[in-house]
Amino acid sequence: MNKRMVFRTIGRLLQITALLLLVPAVVAVVYGETKQLLAFAVTALGSLLLGFLISLVTRTKNRVIYAKDGFVITACAWIMMAVVGALPFVITREIPSYVDAIFETVSGFTTTGASILSDVESMSRSMLFWRSFTHWIGGMGVLVFVMAIIPNFTDRSIHIMRAEMPGPIIGKLVPRVKDTAKILYLIYIFLTALQVLLLRVGGMPLFDSLVHTFGTAGTGGFGIKADSIASYNPYCQWVIAIFMLIFGVNFNIYYLLLLRRIRTALKSSELWYYILIVFSSIALVTINIMPIYKNFAVSLRASVFQVASIVSTTGFATTDFNVWPGLSKAILLLLMFSGACAGSTAGGLKVSRIVMLFKSVGRELRRLLHPRSVAKIQFEGKPIEDSTLNSVCMYFVIYMICFFAMFLLIAFEPFGLETNFSAVAACFNNVGPGFEAVGPASNYSAYTDFSKIILSFAMLLGRLEIFPMIIMLSPRTWLKK
Amino acid sequence: MNKRMVFRTIGRLLQITALLLLVPAVVAVVYGETKQLLAFAVTALGSLLLGFLISLVTRTKNRVIYAKDGFVITACAWIMMAVVGALPFVITREIPSYVDAIFETVSGFTTTGASILSDVESMSRSMLFWRSFTHWIGGMGVLVFVMAIIPNFTDRSIHIMRAEMPGPIIGKLVPRVKDTAKILYLIYIFLTALQVLLLRVGGMPLFDSLVHTFGTAGTGGFGIKADSIASYNPYCQWVIAIFMLIFGVNFNIYYLLLLRRIRTALKSSELWYYILIVFSSIALVTINIMPIYKNFAVSLRASVFQVASIVSTTGFATTDFNVWPGLSKAILLLLMFSGACAGSTAGGLKVSRIVMLFKSVGRELRRLLHPRSVAKIQFEGKPIEDSTLNSVCMYFVIYMICFFAMFLLIAFEPFGLETNFSAVAACFNNVGPGFEAVGPASNYSAYTDFSKIILSFAMLLGRLEIFPMIIMLSPRTWLKK
Repeated sequence: MNKRMVFRTIGRLLQITALLLLVPAVVAVVYGETKQLLAFAVTALGSLLLGFLISLVTRTKNRVIYAKDGFVITACAWIMMAVVGALPFVITREIPSYVDAIFETVSGFTTTGASILSDVESMSRSMLFWRSFTHWIGGMGVLVFVMAIIPNFTDRSIHIMRAEMPGPIIGKLVPRVKDTAKILYLIYIFLTALQVLLLRVGGMPLFDSLVHTFGTAGTGGFGIKADSIASYNPYCQWVIAIFMLIFGVNFNIYYLLLLRRIRTALKSSELWYYILIVFSSIALVTINIMPIYKNFAVSLRASVFQVASIVSTTGFATTDFNVWPGLSKAILLLLMFSGACAGSTAGGLKVSRIVMLFKSVGRELRRLLHPRSVAKIQFEGKPIEDSTLNSVCMYFVIYMICFFAMFLLIAFEPFGLETNFSAVAACFNNVGPGFEAVGPASNYSAYTDFSKIILSFAMLLGRLEIFPMIIMLSPRTWLKK
Repeated sequence: MNKRMVFRTIGRLLQITALLLLVPAVVAVVYGETKQLLAFAVTALGSLLLGFLISLVTRTKNRVIYAKDGFVITACAWIMMAVVGALPFVITREIPSYVDAIFETVSGFTTTGASILSDVESMSRSMLFWRSFTHWIGGMGVLVFVMAIIPNFTDRSIHIMRAEMPGPIIGKLVPRVKDTAKILYLIYIFLTALQVLLLRVGGMPLFDSLVHTFGTAGTGGFGIKADSIASYNPYCQWVIAIFMLIFGVNFNIYYLLLLRRIRTALKSSELWYYILIVFSSIALVTINIMPIYKNFAVSLRASVFQVASIVSTTGFATTDFNVWPGLSKAILLLLMFSGACAGSTAGGLKVSRIVMLFKSVGRELRRLLHPRSVAKIQFEGKPIEDSTLNSVCMYFVIYMICFFAMFLLIAFEPFGLETNFSAVAACFNNVGPGFEAVGPASNYSAYTDFSKIILSFAMLLGRLEIFPMIIMLSPRTWLKK
């Protein structure tokens, strides 16, 4: 492992974090929130200094980043961001407990949207902005951002991108990693601007439009009202619902559209499976909740919004879906696990993995009956290597083991199985709200500090797709060979 | 597929079923239950005749059983046994609904022990006996029984054994399948007799000793009292608890002990992992439930009994563990999925699969860091083939897909997620009782007929380890090439 390069990158990132903290600082200026401005300024300054010190100490000529380094850098970077990003909450006493603040910040960066705030409406504007802004940064990936803006970052940065970008196969859009990162961010910024514009047209105030768009773009889900999105007009609800679905699509598709290769874009199997899952879920849920709302339009809107919110792992709510009938809740629970497309900002297992898992099952059954069968499995128009399929299956195994381990770790809490199970599911898949005591009308404040740390870990594990965190935690990674 | 041979075997099995029905008929004679005697006699006669007719029609010289046939025979055989075995319940009107009777009989043969009976104590003696006797037959496998007793059954019967015996790797104890089947049944009968004797010593009436031993040996769990085993004395509870654990051990171990190859037997890794899981679960649960019972001895007994009951997927209860704290319930839920050892009468994923899953995860992590690493994984002192590991992972994937599919299918029921989730877990893993509305103090009678059929299917899927049922249901199996 190239330890110097690992720490050097972390140092760089601390400086970037300082830069990012200036954005909510500006908001604090606009709203005249002096105490908050000070908190952001102090944190930014400290972060900048520490980053500078680290980069002084870790000068090196060997700028190679190995595969292992990519994982370790990513894991450390995200933990560091949370540790620093939580400080303004604690300094201003808006979230007095540091563990709570860490939970909230991890939840922000990992685009989970699970909150420990019992009264979100009492928060200051700049803090609300910072909370939602972390969604936007975390959505596309902070290291991808670094790659996009810092010139000649490193030659081997693909290992970082691989560790940070979700999905079973990482596709570089263009040969240079740096250019890929730039294109991704440009698409991201364009879609973000478009949504803000559409929300403004619907009469949503600028501040609200911005924070909700950050929450949508990153598929995060932090809101600024106690009832999430419920009090906004139906038009705004529709806009947010549709953009949640849009941000759940693989960004490669948008890049293809940009190049006017529309036919190639429409050939994506994952896209069609995603649409299939979304539409069938919406249909089933709409029928299932009709008896509650007694009105088709209202039921449809609630259904589309909730399905979009959960499948994209955003977590906004327009209604307390915790009181919905069992079938709808079961569908939402399964959608939490599936998530949306790989290469999007959504969490969960990802549709492409689910499809590949089903295809592997088909292959296994064929093998059982015809042991000498060698038929290759096709996906996205190409045969998939057996090694890729096996990796996807292994990922699923590791994923389930992690899931049950974390479920067991928080099981001592005095909540029912449904609460704990859905809490782990909602955090691990970066959704946010679960059911029962952690439903959309409640929050995570009732958990003990220990469980909050476990759930924060779950969010990081889910956002970074497990391996970076495990490799960073393995003692063998840090031992000298 | 050799269809003639498939139907011929089913015909044979109908005749065997007739034979098996004579056992509860004898009990009916002893207790003077005329109506019940008649029901058993009529069912047995019909079964015998139908079996005879089928064997007349399906005479064939080609006695080869292909791999696919093994699966289809096993799946059809188990369904047929349930369809026939349910008849006495319906004829005597002790279970008026045929769907309920099928559920109860499938639950019996698959050694699940889930019941739709609201008042088990009102049942006649011979019906209670038949119910528990199905556990005993299903535990070791009815086709294994057929192989053991019918001379020159077929040369390729290993395919049937493979389909019916649980576990990732099927070990023939001796070169001939028939002899293996005989040895297994002899060990089974010996342990059964030993348990009956020990329960008799503890003062349990003969009838109770027999039915509870059947339930223990098959790891089934049908009781004859409303409170399961709670009203028996602590000695009897300890005997049953220990025998539940004993029947969860791979029978190969007992064969090795029989041959006095004690050292080889003690080298079994699966055995040690099983012991580790059992002991750590008992320790955690005992500490966790101490505040409820306020007495170490009582807590320990309740903990040992419940852990043994769930890990062996038996399902007897001495207390309503549904009211236990969250941690204990979470541990029990996870034990439902793990199950005990392969090659035992228990259900679930099996300890050896769990161990191999963990080892695969380790392999995957090593590969991620050292792509050229070729280190083989060891299990039971031998390197495991990559193909075996991949099969185990695939099995887990298929298992989870089936689990979530069935969970979704019964989600329309007006129960909470915890009830439905644990119902599928308890049926699929052949445990029996779940939590909440299907907890040990309740039963499955509140489910609709549709869900009862889904749950019966879940039990068969779990007992036969998925593939036989799926292959039987696949239309391609039945189409001529």
